[in-house]
Amino acid sequence: MGNLAHQPNLQPASAAFDRLLHRYQQVRALSETICAPLQIEDYVIQSMPEVSPPKWHLAHVSWFFETFLLKAYLDDYRTPNPLYDYLFNSYYETHGIPFPRGQRGLVSRPGVEDVYRYRRHVDQAMGELLTKPPEAHADEIHRRVELGLQHEQQHQELLLMDIKHILAQSPLHPAYRSDLKPAVQAHGERLRWHSFDGGVKHIGHAGEGFAFDCETPRHRQFVEDFQLADRLVTNREYLSFIADGGYARPELWLADGWALLGQTGWNAPLYWQRRDDAWYEMTLGGLGELQLEAPVSHVSFYEADAYARWAEARLPSEAEWEVAAEGRPADGNFLESDHLHPTAPDSPHEGPAQLFGDVWEWTASAYRPYPGFRPLPGSLGEYNGKFMSGQMVLRGGCCATPQAHIRATYRNFFQPSMRWQFAGLRLARELR
Amino acid sequence: MGNLAHQPNLQPASAAFDRLLHRYQQVRALSETICAPLQIEDYVIQSMPEVSPPKWHLAHVSWFFETFLLKAYLDDYRTPNPLYDYLFNSYYETHGIPFPRGQRGLVSRPGVEDVYRYRRHVDQAMGELLTKPPEAHADEIHRRVELGLQHEQQHQELLLMDIKHILAQSPLHPAYRSDLKPAVQAHGERLRWHSFDGGVKHIGHAGEGFAFDCETPRHRQFVEDFQLADRLVTNREYLSFIADGGYARPELWLADGWALLGQTGWNAPLYWQRRDDAWYEMTLGGLGELQLEAPVSHVSFYEADAYARWAEARLPSEAEWEVAAEGRPADGNFLESDHLHPTAPDSPHEGPAQLFGDVWEWTASAYRPYPGFRPLPGSLGEYNGKFMSGQMVLRGGCCATPQAHIRATYRNFFQPSMRWQFAGLRLARELR
Amino acid sequence: MGNLAHQPNLQPASAAFDRLLHRYQQVRALSETICAPLQIEDYVIQSMPEVSPPKWHLAHVSWFFETFLLKAYLDDYRTPNPLYDYLFNSYYETHGIPFPRGQRGLVSRPGVEDVYRYRRHVDQAMGELLTKPPEAHADEIHRRVELGLQHEQQHQELLLMDIKHILAQSPLHPAYRSDLKPAVQAHGERLRWHSFDGGVKHIGHAGEGFAFDCETPRHRQFVEDFQLADRLVTNREYLSFIADGGYARPELWLADGWALLGQTGWNAPLYWQRRDDAWYEMTLGGLGELQLEAPVSHVSFYEADAYARWAEARLPSEAEWEVAAEGRPADGNFLESDHLHPTAPDSPHEGPAQLFGDVWEWTASAYRPYPGFRPLPGSLGEYNGKFMSGQMVLRGGCCATPQAHIRATYRNFFQPSMRWQFAGLRLARELR
Amino acid sequence: MGNLAHQPNLQPASAAFDRLLHRYQQVRALSETICAPLQIEDYVIQSMPEVSPPKWHLAHVSWFFETFLLKAYLDDYRTPNPLYDYLFNSYYETHGIPFPRGQRGLVSRPGVEDVYRYRRHVDQAMGELLTKPPEAHADEIHRRVELGLQHEQQHQELLLMDIKHILAQSPLHPAYRSDLKPAVQAHGERLRWHSFDGGVKHIGHAGEGFAFDCETPRHRQFVEDFQLADRLVTNREYLSFIADGGYARPELWLADGWALLGQTGWNAPLYWQRRDDAWYEMTLGGLGELQLEAPVSHVSFYEADAYARWAEARLPSEAEWEVAAEGRPADGNFLESDHLHPTAPDSPHEGPAQLFGDVWEWTASAYRPYPGFRPLPGSLGEYNGKFMSGQMVLRGGCCATPQAHIRATYRNFFQPSMRWQFAGLRLARELR
Repeated sequence: MGNLAHQPNLQPASAAFDRLLHRYQQVRALSETICAPLQIEDYVIQSMPEVSPPKWHLAHVSWFFETFLLKAYLDDYRTPNPLYDYLFNSYYETHGIPFPRGQRGLVSRPGVEDVYRYRRHVDQAMGELLTKPPEAHADEIHRRVELGLQHEQQHQELLLMDIKHILAQSPLHPAYRSDLKPAVQAHGERLRWHSFDGGVKHIGHAGEGFAFDCETPRHRQFVEDFQLADRLVTNREYLSFIADGGYARPELWLADGWALLGQTGWNAPLYWQRRDDAWYEMTLGGLGELQLEAPVSHVSFYEADAYARWAEARLPSEAEWEVAAEGRPADGNFLESDHLHPTAPDSPHEGPAQLFGDVWEWTASAYRPYPGFRPLPGSLGEYNGKFMSGQMVLRGGCCATPQAHIRATYRNFFQPSMRWQFAGLRLARELR
Repeated sequence: MGNLAHQPNLQPASAAFDRLLHRYQQVRALSETICAPLQIEDYVIQSMPEVSPPKWHLAHVSWFFETFLLKAYLDDYRTPNPLYDYLFNSYYETHGIPFPRGQRGLVSRPGVEDVYRYRRHVDQAMGELLTKPPEAHADEIHRRVELGLQHEQQHQELLLMDIKHILAQSPLHPAYRSDLKPAVQAHGERLRWHSFDGGVKHIGHAGEGFAFDCETPRHRQFVEDFQLADRLVTNREYLSFIADGGYARPELWLADGWALLGQTGWNAPLYWQRRDDAWYEMTLGGLGELQLEAPVSHVSFYEADAYARWAEARLPSEAEWEVAAEGRPADGNFLESDHLHPTAPDSPHEGPAQLFGDVWEWTASAYRPYPGFRPLPGSLGEYNGKFMSGQMVLRGGCCATPQAHIRATYRNFFQPSMRWQFAGLRLARELR
Repeated sequence: MGNLAHQPNLQPASAAFDRLLHRYQQVRALSETICAPLQIEDYVIQSMPEVSPPKWHLAHVSWFFETFLLKAYLDDYRTPNPLYDYLFNSYYETHGIPFPRGQRGLVSRPGVEDVYRYRRHVDQAMGELLTKPPEAHADEIHRRVELGLQHEQQHQELLLMDIKHILAQSPLHPAYRSDLKPAVQAHGERLRWHSFDGGVKHIGHAGEGFAFDCETPRHRQFVEDFQLADRLVTNREYLSFIADGGYARPELWLADGWALLGQTGWNAPLYWQRRDDAWYEMTLGGLGELQLEAPVSHVSFYEADAYARWAEARLPSEAEWEVAAEGRPADGNFLESDHLHPTAPDSPHEGPAQLFGDVWEWTASAYRPYPGFRPLPGSLGEYNGKFMSGQMVLRGGCCATPQAHIRATYRNFFQPSMRWQFAGLRLARELR
Repeated sequence: MGNLAHQPNLQPASAAFDRLLHRYQQVRALSETICAPLQIEDYVIQSMPEVSPPKWHLAHVSWFFETFLLKAYLDDYRTPNPLYDYLFNSYYETHGIPFPRGQRGLVSRPGVEDVYRYRRHVDQAMGELLTKPPEAHADEIHRRVELGLQHEQQHQELLLMDIKHILAQSPLHPAYRSDLKPAVQAHGERLRWHSFDGGVKHIGHAGEGFAFDCETPRHRQFVEDFQLADRLVTNREYLSFIADGGYARPELWLADGWALLGQTGWNAPLYWQRRDDAWYEMTLGGLGELQLEAPVSHVSFYEADAYARWAEARLPSEAEWEVAAEGRPADGNFLESDHLHPTAPDSPHEGPAQLFGDVWEWTASAYRPYPGFRPLPGSLGEYNGKFMSGQMVLRGGCCATPQAHIRATYRNFFQPSMRWQFAGLRLARELR
């Protein structure tokens, strides 16, 4: 949820809303651009409970605008189908019992065309609302639209993650797109360490600009001196971990991770396949040879943590990561780079590279509220706060994140066993 | 598997194969006619492990011809994709490890168009093969094509069952077709009993005409005198069972059925919904009011058995059913009737009505081999024999069965807990 | 349930009841003799849901007398604890909701001493009842006591099965008894076939003497000519099946059995252990070398069926078995032989050996009601009838069955996946 | 694991080891005193996977001394049974594959007497070792014995938790002891808030005295000003939460907790039972009326968190708790108080009452390593560190904790769904 303190409308509402409408149209268009390469069949599949069918994503983000903007503020708004409120509610329990998450992939109707028609319907109504926003609610509308757009950007990344997972189920290894921008050939660089001074640090978001509620309030944390690796862990390094028996040595693993290995038989990151003597990797461009200098991706927290222990290092805390990232430009390999896959860092680089983009970096921090955290009132309060148990924080965005969506204070979170997101790691250690 | 004893080629091969090719084309076309009303999204869903996506059905029946005919007998046959052999093998373990059944609904590619292209490819090659069948194998080819067509007819019924189940997952209650032939208005008739003399009876298939291996050999069984109801149990009667606490009285249920009620919470047949004070039923024509005089359908064996006990009767054995059905025309409400839903019997009628069509009739008999049963050698031997445990026999076909597919000796079989097939019951009792 | 037609009291009630009381005392004493070698810890364990703690068995059989005799017919009978009715009801749902079966092993109290005290209490009250049975109910009491004793004999075998399973959980391989009677050294005999004429046969129980309701009514079945092996399948023969890849060849298995192999990893009978190059077997006398000429035991129906297919034979139907066994003395290796393990047949022998005792013989027949079957009214009707789905019939008793408990018409039944009972097989085939 | 920095042997080894041996004997004796009221049956049960049979506890703590002391340092030590190393290893994967945790309750042998014999055997050998410790290893031996005693104290609390859970499975509601010390009648006091100044605080253990590795190193954390309730939340207060629909309002719950409610149907703390209009509670003294002024106990983290949200407060962080507790005497209602149940606070009291004893207090903090944390090398490194995911920290000890075992820096941890431990909560909030 948005930080309520910021004041987006210091200028004439009309100009601010003009820009907002423009941005609304751009963001909404990007979701459809992402889905353009899909066949209708691809829109329907739920390849595991955590994955949603792409057509559900496209509808759900529209439901968000319908529910929190159109039904609240647009007179005489009519939904195309009252059952959509049930079908496309994700998890807002205080709003109503949602359609069971695990059954999203069992529903063929409404179909893809219906969903696009629903988007048109919502877009037209949103156009009306943003053209003539009721004055008494203009600020709240502005904030909610901003939240809705940030929400849709999150689902743009989810769409790419889910599409990858869906296509990877087929033994045919279909490519999502065959025209992705190839990575530049890279030479592996030795890992170097950057030192950071500890002390009382200010962590979290404050001031203007959008941030989710979970990034606030800005507050103080005491951080010890620490060192951070200048780049992400690479596939080549991760292969050494595997070759050294990494997946078979209990002393490297958290107990939950070790138990999970026993249940799943994992012995490599998700999407890796060994054929004869070579490793291949399923990407959004299809099956290809593993790129050794690219960052390892699609590892769980347990694997990241075990790798770090094997490397005689550790994962950074989220505060350490934020100390290192604050003030740096949020540049990197994002969705707009059109690789849709992590790539090796530029060489040479100043300071820690790849803090933003490529892969989300698992941190050592559990996702818990900052001191003084307050979720929004009402159903929108379910956006972030209620997930603050059993999950770990990841930082920095990835190659499927829209660049405008990320910032140094951004807190992403996943259960430690999840690995269909673009997630890798960067090493940290005490100052030596 | 077909009865190997029959001799289909007493006439010039060419004429027999001409007719066979013609029938091939008709049967293959019907599968596609059945799928014509579908949207592409509908083709992809696997709504429970026992249901297959319609596109999988369409591909699998083609794989059957490809595997057992084209690869065996057509020189230079090339498959469009070698992975199809893995993807579309259902359960022929001796042929190769099949793609996991429960994951059929996770595979978006090959898509619907690819599947139709595969069908074209197989049809063209089958045309070649049947136009110039290699003489040395002509008999075996004829038998296998016949088996392949019977197999495809089975999948035509499965397609309708599965489509119904898939569409029923959506809260929108979409209709498969809105132009189905409506049932004639019916007046409920009191149930009457027909008496049959017992003795040593001949059961099972012999002679010309196709039959599956499990219907053979024709053999003797001793049957006591018995009575059979003149029609199927109706929805009205089943409602009385419910109203009388049928689902809450353990003395009416087999132990496995009672346990299943505890796990599932079943309190009515599948597809029934109570709204306010009325009962509705999901059909292939959408959601409609429950037709009281129509046969009850979509009940499990446990429910059929409990109903019969409540009615102070029992289910007939499969031998009793066959004694009653033998020699009668296999007329009734089949797929070709275009109701795609069971209907009330004609009134008045002579002898037991509805033996064929409407709903499959659960019998009291476990699906086990007849004395002297021999499955075919090779992978085709997996067709029926290996399923002879844990299942009950149903007889008579249903409103989704192609009429040409059924006969008095036909043995269908399902696990006793299954109820997405069109299955109902007819009462039997000892002679009084 | 007992056959109600028989008239046990042609003589003065007192004499009949004297004998009944005497038999009551003998049967009750044997249950305690069976448990005498146990440590208290052994009485408490439920090693899988199907196994009950020995102390539960001892209490439940007493509950049976308490519930169906003492509370019904003994004035002023008082139970030592009203909660026992809940704790020790096994599955009589019409009597009351039973304590959950899978949780029997979670209850430490009442303890072993309490249970023996409960037995004393019931025995004393039964002594009173049988000394002065109320005349009006004398017949029914006699029948129910007989049923209660037969019931307790069933649990005597269950006790031995369950004790074996419980002790086998410990890596220490404790012996139940170290003074069991050893088997005579045996030389393997070549298997020979006995031929039997078919025709209309009378199957099932009639006349005097106890039988369970499921063995009635005696009725006619048509049986084809058949052959039966003259002895049980041996461990030596079963090892050949294993050595020939029996557990890895799908064409030998029913589909459900093949799936079960995939889930369980079974590759030998229960209780077999391979160490270095030798096979060992856990028995009630502890872990010992596998006896090659002894009958194979602790195989599931699926394994028995697969073995028979591998041996180019089949399992006999229960009618075939009964035709072969009828009229023969029910002699063999029973509980009283004090081996508590199957042994090789006497050599030489006339006619089929080992029909009774050693191991229960899996038949090809599903456990279903005989034509005209009627369960008893009331809760006792739950004894057999409600289990008539999903189970297969076994015949002939085993080395843990009290000899007086068995007869040619006796129908035992287990789910096809169960193998903790002493179950093996005998081959059958068509007449050649 | 022990803090390796402390130097326990400034005095002659013999005196230090004399005292150690004395303490060893005291601690070991207490474990047996705790078990004295048990029947043998109670020693065997594993009432859920997280519970261990008491006899397993008694053996496992002995295995710890055997494995890490006797086999390492006592020449010619011989184990009574080499299989004990497999059976009684809890989770030390680097030591060897442990017997499966969930099957501990399936093993009747070794029996209770064998386990006590094992204890005697270990105690005697430990007596030898501590009487003449090999000089070269004296320090390490001293540290490991201390760790082994702390470990056994942890299992003393676990024994009481598990015994309570085991006895609660029986519908007879047996009491563990009927001579427990009753609580003094209490009058409820209004909750008051204590304010604490924030700033950079020192958290964690340093200096002499035993502490587990996870309590180290002592380090700095920035803590904001905060308030803490002066006592624990009471049953009376928790009943208000229930009465206000606390278990039915999703806005009060973390998403994982809400999902858990749906799966379990929880609507009150563990061990509560409603009968007619009154609430009862299963205690170690049997079933009794709920004491309204006693602290609520046996709630999960989710319930504690939901209650705090309902009360417009929050749980304290573990740092806040430690700031409040540091420097206070670790007095309270512990195992030695012999209530074995939480009691109302003394009235009146100065400062926050009940910080130590009564119930463990759920904190808002995930159990993660302190900055600079290092586990011990070798298998003992598995003691704490590998559990640092998916668990929450609890502080302060409970009525089943030996008093000498607790301190202000002590970090206990459980999965957020667990509630068979004595766990309750204290409210915190921002300074107002």
